[in-house]
Amino acid sequence: MSYLPNPSLQITADHKIKLVEAPVQEPGKGEVLLHIKATGVCGSDLHFWKTGRIGDLIFHGDCIIGHEAAGVVLKCGEGVTDLQPGDRVAVEPGVPCENCFLCDDGRYNLCEDVAFAGVYPYAGTIQRYKSHPAKYLHKLPSNLSYLDGALLEPLSVVMRGIQVAQLELGRGVVICGAGPIGLIAAAAARASGAHPVVITDIDAPRLEFAKEYLPNIQTYQINTSLDAQGNAKAIRTLFGPDEYTAPDRVLECTGVESSICTAAYTARRGGVVVVVGVGKEIINNVPFMHLSLAEIDLKFINRYRDTWPRAIACMSAGILPDLKPLISHTFPLERANEALELCADRGRPSIKVTIVDETDVTV
Amino acid sequence: MSYLPNPSLQITADHKIKLVEAPVQEPGKGEVLLHIKATGVCGSDLHFWKTGRIGDLIFHGDCIIGHEAAGVVLKCGEGVTDLQPGDRVAVEPGVPCENCFLCDDGRYNLCEDVAFAGVYPYAGTIQRYKSHPAKYLHKLPSNLSYLDGALLEPLSVVMRGIQVAQLELGRGVVICGAGPIGLIAAAAARASGAHPVVITDIDAPRLEFAKEYLPNIQTYQINTSLDAQGNAKAIRTLFGPDEYTAPDRVLECTGVESSICTAAYTARRGGVVVVVGVGKEIINNVPFMHLSLAEIDLKFINRYRDTWPRAIACMSAGILPDLKPLISHTFPLERANEALELCADRGRPSIKVTIVDETDVTV
Amino acid sequence: MSYLPNPSLQITADHKIKLVEAPVQEPGKGEVLLHIKATGVCGSDLHFWKTGRIGDLIFHGDCIIGHEAAGVVLKCGEGVTDLQPGDRVAVEPGVPCENCFLCDDGRYNLCEDVAFAGVYPYAGTIQRYKSHPAKYLHKLPSNLSYLDGALLEPLSVVMRGIQVAQLELGRGVVICGAGPIGLIAAAAARASGAHPVVITDIDAPRLEFAKEYLPNIQTYQINTSLDAQGNAKAIRTLFGPDEYTAPDRVLECTGVESSICTAAYTARRGGVVVVVGVGKEIINNVPFMHLSLAEIDLKFINRYRDTWPRAIACMSAGILPDLKPLISHTFPLERANEALELCADRGRPSIKVTIVDETDVTV
Amino acid sequence: MSYLPNPSLQITADHKIKLVEAPVQEPGKGEVLLHIKATGVCGSDLHFWKTGRIGDLIFHGDCIIGHEAAGVVLKCGEGVTDLQPGDRVAVEPGVPCENCFLCDDGRYNLCEDVAFAGVYPYAGTIQRYKSHPAKYLHKLPSNLSYLDGALLEPLSVVMRGIQVAQLELGRGVVICGAGPIGLIAAAAARASGAHPVVITDIDAPRLEFAKEYLPNIQTYQINTSLDAQGNAKAIRTLFGPDEYTAPDRVLECTGVESSICTAAYTARRGGVVVVVGVGKEIINNVPFMHLSLAEIDLKFINRYRDTWPRAIACMSAGILPDLKPLISHTFPLERANEALELCADRGRPSIKVTIVDETDVTV
Repeated sequence: MSYLPNPSLQITADHKIKLVEAPVQEPGKGEVLLHIKATGVCGSDLHFWKTGRIGDLIFHGDCIIGHEAAGVVLKCGEGVTDLQPGDRVAVEPGVPCENCFLCDDGRYNLCEDVAFAGVYPYAGTIQRYKSHPAKYLHKLPSNLSYLDGALLEPLSVVMRGIQVAQLELGRGVVICGAGPIGLIAAAAARASGAHPVVITDIDAPRLEFAKEYLPNIQTYQINTSLDAQGNAKAIRTLFGPDEYTAPDRVLECTGVESSICTAAYTARRGGVVVVVGVGKEIINNVPFMHLSLAEIDLKFINRYRDTWPRAIACMSAGILPDLKPLISHTFPLERANEALELCADRGRPSIKVTIVDETDVTV
Repeated sequence: MSYLPNPSLQITADHKIKLVEAPVQEPGKGEVLLHIKATGVCGSDLHFWKTGRIGDLIFHGDCIIGHEAAGVVLKCGEGVTDLQPGDRVAVEPGVPCENCFLCDDGRYNLCEDVAFAGVYPYAGTIQRYKSHPAKYLHKLPSNLSYLDGALLEPLSVVMRGIQVAQLELGRGVVICGAGPIGLIAAAAARASGAHPVVITDIDAPRLEFAKEYLPNIQTYQINTSLDAQGNAKAIRTLFGPDEYTAPDRVLECTGVESSICTAAYTARRGGVVVVVGVGKEIINNVPFMHLSLAEIDLKFINRYRDTWPRAIACMSAGILPDLKPLISHTFPLERANEALELCADRGRPSIKVTIVDETDVTV
Repeated sequence: MSYLPNPSLQITADHKIKLVEAPVQEPGKGEVLLHIKATGVCGSDLHFWKTGRIGDLIFHGDCIIGHEAAGVVLKCGEGVTDLQPGDRVAVEPGVPCENCFLCDDGRYNLCEDVAFAGVYPYAGTIQRYKSHPAKYLHKLPSNLSYLDGALLEPLSVVMRGIQVAQLELGRGVVICGAGPIGLIAAAAARASGAHPVVITDIDAPRLEFAKEYLPNIQTYQINTSLDAQGNAKAIRTLFGPDEYTAPDRVLECTGVESSICTAAYTARRGGVVVVVGVGKEIINNVPFMHLSLAEIDLKFINRYRDTWPRAIACMSAGILPDLKPLISHTFPLERANEALELCADRGRPSIKVTIVDETDVTV
Repeated sequence: MSYLPNPSLQITADHKIKLVEAPVQEPGKGEVLLHIKATGVCGSDLHFWKTGRIGDLIFHGDCIIGHEAAGVVLKCGEGVTDLQPGDRVAVEPGVPCENCFLCDDGRYNLCEDVAFAGVYPYAGTIQRYKSHPAKYLHKLPSNLSYLDGALLEPLSVVMRGIQVAQLELGRGVVICGAGPIGLIAAAAARASGAHPVVITDIDAPRLEFAKEYLPNIQTYQINTSLDAQGNAKAIRTLFGPDEYTAPDRVLECTGVESSICTAAYTARRGGVVVVVGVGKEIINNVPFMHLSLAEIDLKFINRYRDTWPRAIACMSAGILPDLKPLISHTFPLERANEALELCADRGRPSIKVTIVDETDVTV
């Protein structure tokens, strides 16, 4: 098999992006070589670009980014039996060690030795060719496109958040943040039977989009002249008259300090705040005594585990609304840098920006 | 206030039904007097009629039956502040003691001193006038009818079964039995994001109805020439190729021994069977070693607790499909006996039979 | 019945303590009049004295304090059948409304209308005579003294913390803080089968006491020249070589910001920090990204529910070591103010200071 | 390395035991060769001998039995880095596939492809030399003997039963059956802070032993003239006056139908019965309506997962009483058949019978 050029988008140790040709990695044992057809840009990609790190994850050198991806199998490495060339697959980007106690215990998302595509030093999916272990690829049903497939990764984040939050049929939930994760979370919360579903954001146009995309949920625009308690009080009134009707589950999808604090005040006594978003190393102004007297659990999630099959089932069976309207912009692989630049430009609003490669590599 | 005659349907200690005039009970402290507008007939009513008991619940004397009810407030007793005449309400029929450790612990459905409407010696709702504690009445939103209100009780059973089963978005579930509880359970499972949802029954017409009522679920007709393991195997093939795709949640809604055994074999390793149905005192042929080696949890539920508000939210907000198509027959209160007789007649298939009273009592 | 003088210790709205005569409140319906024989001083008493509040709990006027108490029944109010004069009882100080959804749900510790003895405006137990609902009194077995009885309240806090933490037989736990709650928590953790149990404090003499009191646990002195991560690392080495052996449960019993942060870094990936201590309204420096990447749950508890019977069982049956060695000082009721002053005096170390009244009131 | 003869105890497809010489299996990749120093005989060994099967586990041919074992490492296969010759280890007998969804999910005890030592066709430990994967061997601390090490397997069963039962500090538990598993369960329940602990058996001498071994628990002899409900009622009276004090956890350690039924009646409303014992394929007389109305969960366990480290911690740290008094008889390997014959002989009571090999194999 001969290869076309392999353009790749990389972040450097000095916080720059560069679009350069990368060598093609041949598939090793248990791996397949993919032609990556679509990769969504994630907020974490911007974080890495602008700050070089998220927590202990640090870009010490150049690394191809991208981890929300789908593609087609080109070639199978030794020992691969479940996949064959031509199979359309979604990429589960984190490959755990499968040997530590966390892997053995089923909590492979917490593995300290995970090789996560798109986090230094593991090559990501914003390139044409990528090798990946077959076990962490998931076949796409025929009614799902590559764009759908790339959306399975943010949906997986949400599936895990929803699972940890243990939403209940007929009980309310607040989703903080109307970005891609928040919007998918609102759709998934509704698909889980939660009601009412209220999504909040500081940005009116985002809420306008949310309202249009999910007509059966409610929106609340964060009032910047109010503090966390004030906004929480206003959100709670959307749920009804008293503590009983207040939301006992809040999915915080921004990772922003003020939003986490608002979430803490929003949950009803005995409720749970699941923090899905990531953000600064340290947060301040956490309302400790409120959390204590109201017995609010603060739970955090790190990505996902065993979510692709369930996410595919939901998407394929129409349990969720079509997520593709969230894709506000697409760019060809050769202009992948522009995708990141767009995401970083507050003056040009976007939701999910996706890089696609429709090149015919089989020629 | 003067009263019209108060026809009531009673079961006697010698297992007969009688439709007789009953005195009107004035509302005591904290109670309201209701005009009962609709009561659904429940399988347990038939059980009581035909056998005089369910477990330790025994009809030692005449007692008005009926517990799936909705009505309108006619008069408020002392101390009632939340309701007023004219309020349309659904009846939560079980009134717990509020003083035992189970009540104090929030498990009021397990209270040993519960006064349950329609179970000897507590008068039920198949009568025109009934007094009931205001705390166990739930206001109906304007978009719900009395027929909807009466369906909130079986929906409550299902809400609790779903809660105990902890269904997951995108994971499959089997519902055993396509009677009213099974059908509502299938609708609620789908509304909770479960997929696939497979409903089983021995009766083809019931499954035909299920298919029409819920086009996005699958059905399986129990093959009487197969044993429990054989039927379980056939059901599992509907979920996919292997143990991973097999259903890890089964809601058994028949209470029939063979169905419970089939449920036990159907759940995937490590799964849970929630037995919602009631039936014989004792069951045999329980596949102990299968349950043990496959680590299947057998969970049982006794009615519901704190479900009406969530059930009303679901029904009112359209989270669930309209349940009224389940009402196959209605009878006026004056012919309530015929409703029970119909339910008991296997030759005349019915789903949910409901007794209504449209008499204007305000004259 | 004639009464002796009723000295009482009160906190005023302007943050002073005063020891003054108070009227005797006759027992109402469902209440009994107690002769309070022993009351322990709690850190929250000092908080209220020095700052006038804990969270939303504010001393707007004079109020008798004290809530860790035991006494003897002198007189029964109307409708009390379970107790009679002469019965020795422990006081559960929080009396919930029994009518809100939190009470109905068994979470009565979260009741917003709880009448908590010793928190404004509800009279506490540092007085000779106190009326209290019989339902919230618990008979003391003959092998428990009034001093034991007064210790049941802090033990109850611990019982709830232990319950929320879900300690496991043979798995390690860290207890932050070697004050009374921390010491009892260490004893209870060991009684629950946790191993190793490590208790930490900044204060060497407290750890000396801990070592003597509980020879089979380990101690760690917080090194003030290290930051939270540094101390956490040192604590973790006491548990073994790697992440697997690191503690997956931490009981934070100080409520101090730096200790909560250390707790967050101490728990192993996927672990749980249960914050038992109370402290400042707001905390800063919370290691958000660490909590997120390591998926550490932060749980908070507000007092206790349904713990006295279990606490009495543990204490009476010798499941726990004798807690009375924790009582470092006792004061007669007439010098109750000195008890608080001692507790507030960092120069005079104390553990649990208890006010006793051995006056014969039956004369 | 040259080997001594390797006597082995085997069960044949036609339900016979034979003590024969077996070839020595050299350690493969990741395996070590052990000199097995001690193996306890388990009830399941007798089951296999007498009936040829437990559930789907069937002896289709000759197979060396034995799975409660400890030994010393003689030789390391390729790639073994954590162990070296001379290391004293306990054997975790079940080796899962590490590739199915159950293994990936941390539920490796449910793996359908587990290679379990001593279950056809996987050679067990009643032989001198055995190869076993290093990952499923656990180093013994110096204060634990080989006899202790062999007891870690039944202790592991109990650790998992205790974990599933979620015993609570200060709450009661009933242990059904005073055989080795029941006795260890009683010790572990007490070590977990449960109180009261009541152990039941049909056999008076077993209860005499229990009383002597664990003086701080209570015993109850099953009265064969009473039915399950009658015995349950008598057991409940040991816990106190009412439903509140009744045991909410029951660990059924016999696997006998009548005992499971008694367990179901013994648990308080809302309680949990964890069935640890194994027995007949099918059980009858299960009190369905009682389980339903009282909402008793029936949970089952299949062996254990991730229990050795916790079991070693408990045993080594003295959290549990010394288990060696449970070893009523020992036999040298050359007379291993007599160990099984003794266990099968109801006329010669035994508790735990252990086969030891003190031969010096290094000569």
